Amino acid sequence: MITLAPEPLTRAAFAPFGDVIETAGAAHFVINEGTTTRFHALTEAATGPEGTAILSIFRGRRRPLTLTMMERHPLGSQAFMPLSDEDWLVVVAPSPEPSALRCFRATGDQGVSYFSGIWHHPLLVLCAQQDFLVVDRQGPGENLEERMLSAAVEIEM
Amino acid sequence: MITLAPEPLTRAAFAPFGDVIETAGAAHFVINEGTTTRFHALTEAATGPEGTAILSIFRGRRRPLTLTMMERHPLGSQAFMPLSDEDWLVVVAPSPEPSALRCFRATGDQGVSYFSGIWHHPLLVLCAQQDFLVVDRQGPGENLEERMLSAAVEIEM
Repeated sequence: MITLAPEPLTRAAFAPFGDVIETAGAAHFVINEGTTTRFHALTEAATGPEGTAILSIFRGRRRPLTLTMMERHPLGSQAFMPLSDEDWLVVVAPSPEPSALRCFRATGDQGVSYFSGIWHHPLLVLCAQQDFLVVDRQGPGENLEERMLSAAVEIEM
Repeated sequence: MITLAPEPLTRAAFAPFGDVIETAGAAHFVINEGTTTRFHALTEAATGPEGTAILSIFRGRRRPLTLTMMERHPLGSQAFMPLSDEDWLVVVAPSPEPSALRCFRATGDQGVSYFSGIWHHPLLVLCAQQDFLVVDRQGPGENLEERMLSAAVEIEM
């Protein structure tokens, strides 16, 4: 069993895996006669020519923080934005090997979008239950690949 | 001056204008080894063949509830999902005439997606400041049409 410690989620650290969706440090401009600030195009939904972007809500429940598998979506990006202000965990890896995993602790005002093909763990919430707006791809083709890890990875909070 | 009273936001009442993004009454299934409920494809981002869906955050500030204009996006849908639990207002119309406007009061766990070409008012929040995740279209072509109303419309709360 390998242990893994969460790092703070920052744009720079997360750049190889996807975009961080947050207002802090983001380009913005004012619209609607000065009444709205638009933090513009924080990420783009990649769906390929045959896919479309759909919006869903994922209701995640707390689960043991012992990881045994990773997954990826080869045909499209997948974005998660928390709908309540609770920290949550993001686990990604350049390859689905236990020693390659990275864990980021996101705050309740940080979302992420995984680039197409990036290995990640399914949703990990830290409170009893948390909702997320999810933007991902719908369309033809097989867009889910799962891989068991050769050893379990335990997140050490 | 015309006055307009907010109605509750329901899927049935909003159907001519777009989708309501909420878990209540939505189709769902369980994923991630039973730890996540997916309320699936609550709406689709329409962008046309030349557009892509982008994710932005809109930070809306309270403004007077006297409406003088409407707008629409002929080339793509536009979805708003509140990121904090505060009621907000949605104003739509089949045509940009004062007597045609409808106002819906959305709760903090209800988002909407305006279909392409649907006349709507820019963001109307009821608290001092509220953030929304916005999914709309980026791409070539003119995707914003604005129209002044022939008479002001006052929302009566």
